[in-house]
Amino acid sequence: MTDEVRMVDMTLRDGMHAVDHQFTPEEMADVAAALDAANMDVVEVSHGDGMGGSSINYGFAAADTEEYLDAVVPELNDTELSVLLLPGIGTVEEIDMAIDRGADICRVATHVTEADISEDHFTYVKDRGLEANGLLMLSHMAEPERILHEAELMQEYGADAVYVMDSAGALLPSDVRDRVGLLADELDIEVGYHAHNNLGLGIGNTLAALDAGATTVDGCLRGLGAGSGNAQIEVLVGVLDKAGYDINPDFFGVMDAAEDVLVPMISDDEMPELDNDSLMLGYAGVYSSFLRHTRRVGEKYDIDPREILVELGEMEVVGGQEDLITDVAARLAEDRDAGTAAEAASDD
Amino acid sequence: MTDEVRMVDMTLRDGMHAVDHQFTPEEMADVAAALDAANMDVVEVSHGDGMGGSSINYGFAAADTEEYLDAVVPELNDTELSVLLLPGIGTVEEIDMAIDRGADICRVATHVTEADISEDHFTYVKDRGLEANGLLMLSHMAEPERILHEAELMQEYGADAVYVMDSAGALLPSDVRDRVGLLADELDIEVGYHAHNNLGLGIGNTLAALDAGATTVDGCLRGLGAGSGNAQIEVLVGVLDKAGYDINPDFFGVMDAAEDVLVPMISDDEMPELDNDSLMLGYAGVYSSFLRHTRRVGEKYDIDPREILVELGEMEVVGGQEDLITDVAARLAEDRDAGTAAEAASDD
Repeated sequence: MTDEVRMVDMTLRDGMHAVDHQFTPEEMADVAAALDAANMDVVEVSHGDGMGGSSINYGFAAADTEEYLDAVVPELNDTELSVLLLPGIGTVEEIDMAIDRGADICRVATHVTEADISEDHFTYVKDRGLEANGLLMLSHMAEPERILHEAELMQEYGADAVYVMDSAGALLPSDVRDRVGLLADELDIEVGYHAHNNLGLGIGNTLAALDAGATTVDGCLRGLGAGSGNAQIEVLVGVLDKAGYDINPDFFGVMDAAEDVLVPMISDDEMPELDNDSLMLGYAGVYSSFLRHTRRVGEKYDIDPREILVELGEMEVVGGQEDLITDVAARLAEDRDAGTAAEAASDD
Repeated sequence: MTDEVRMVDMTLRDGMHAVDHQFTPEEMADVAAALDAANMDVVEVSHGDGMGGSSINYGFAAADTEEYLDAVVPELNDTELSVLLLPGIGTVEEIDMAIDRGADICRVATHVTEADISEDHFTYVKDRGLEANGLLMLSHMAEPERILHEAELMQEYGADAVYVMDSAGALLPSDVRDRVGLLADELDIEVGYHAHNNLGLGIGNTLAALDAGATTVDGCLRGLGAGSGNAQIEVLVGVLDKAGYDINPDFFGVMDAAEDVLVPMISDDEMPELDNDSLMLGYAGVYSSFLRHTRRVGEKYDIDPREILVELGEMEVVGGQEDLITDVAARLAEDRDAGTAAEAASDD
């Protein structure tokens, strides 16, 4: 365990999901200025799904990444600027654009078992002299040893840090310790952790990650993010300060950024909420894109959509496999009807 | 560590704080019925400050405890009924009343260093044949060894379980482990844990408590409770199920009780929120009664009320010591003015 922690604010990237990617460049500038004033280490700015995400598939953002970066960069003095790239969504053109505008860090994210698609991107980012961080998404879907293998690939490609991303908010503190602890023991680079709050463990899991050897952690003001959101970063600052970690952000300053700057921009509906939907996604370990379809199919087959989600979670479905929902519902309905028939028979 | 966990729902007691003690007996009956249907182990029903709390000091409830108990008892089949008593607020008359109406458990709560005021109450409850649980409130204000001493007193008096209550939501997981772990090692009776979510650790701390040897834990539907609320019990059920604990409540049933039964009774303003106010109370370890006065005094002395709260927390103030707020603000203002004067002098 090291005591120095780097804190990365995701309000202007992961938080974009909560506002349907509709922050204006001016709003981003205001949030960035408040975070810079509060000594935040890093702010990340991008479409919620990374650079190039603004599209019919992922939702159009209110402005181009260029406009966002142009608005934010003048507000940053000591705070570093990070951008996100998902191979397949963003390209090297976007990396160039971000570097030209002053990005300090490029984070490259892949599914937890697909680090091998990121080699070219890491090579490119490092060749251009930037810090490169690797993100392994949906990390509840792989065992610690497999995650280590993928993280070692990213390290080989040149990553300066690798993050365990709990994208579905499905990990328990013991799961976090196992994953982060192994990476911290075996890698030569920094290990990071990124929480979602679906199981109410945004802060608890981040503490577990730090205890297991992570040295860089993500969060958002007010926890802003899809569904139940991310680790609430002003809370995290207070907790890390209280726990004796060596951090740069100023507690009161980050609190002010949350309540005086961000909150007035956000409607009540956009605020993260730990309701039954987000809880079920975390419990089942399923990505939020399944929620709406599952409800519709559940109604058709008269099956509790939560049962379908649990089944899907056990099958470890990923985005793009939404067609499996109907198969699962049909099977559950068949099991139920068979059960009812057997009961009726035994009643005779 | 044992795997069997008893879960106690506090929606109709600690949750009363969030609704200014205004649940109607009918609303209580509906919530209790949903929790009983979901196999909750215990529900607690009382004024937020315990039986006898309905008063000008603590806020008048919408009905008498008698009416609440009469409404709830017919709805409970397998779920046990608990009532809360704070010596000095409630009396033996209320214990008799609750027993006559069917209470199974009486919880007796004192400040963490004042267990000695509870002897008569425990004796009385045990003489009448009920289960008696002891609650040590504001347990961040005492070191583990002192808490053990107080818990041993309650054990001597006849308590069947002692709870570490994190009334201000001020404990970190390591603090919880130290406190609960020592009690679990040294006591012959059950150890419980009761969280508040001021540092976002309602769920994380409850897991830490169970890992350290607690076997009974509290929570509320949707986390309902003053400020940032308690551990959100439907989330806790999902998490404990996922973590492999042996629990009785049905996950989907408790989720339904939260969203279908409780949520329609509650306004948005009554929903727990982890805002700057509740975060500061947890960070400073100060009880919520200080909040309003601190803001007023801070304005008068032009001192950030958060600085006053931090000072008050270091002084370990308790309810009733609100007059210290002005002293602290005056001292902070004096220090500030002296600093400004010294700066001005050194500028010359």
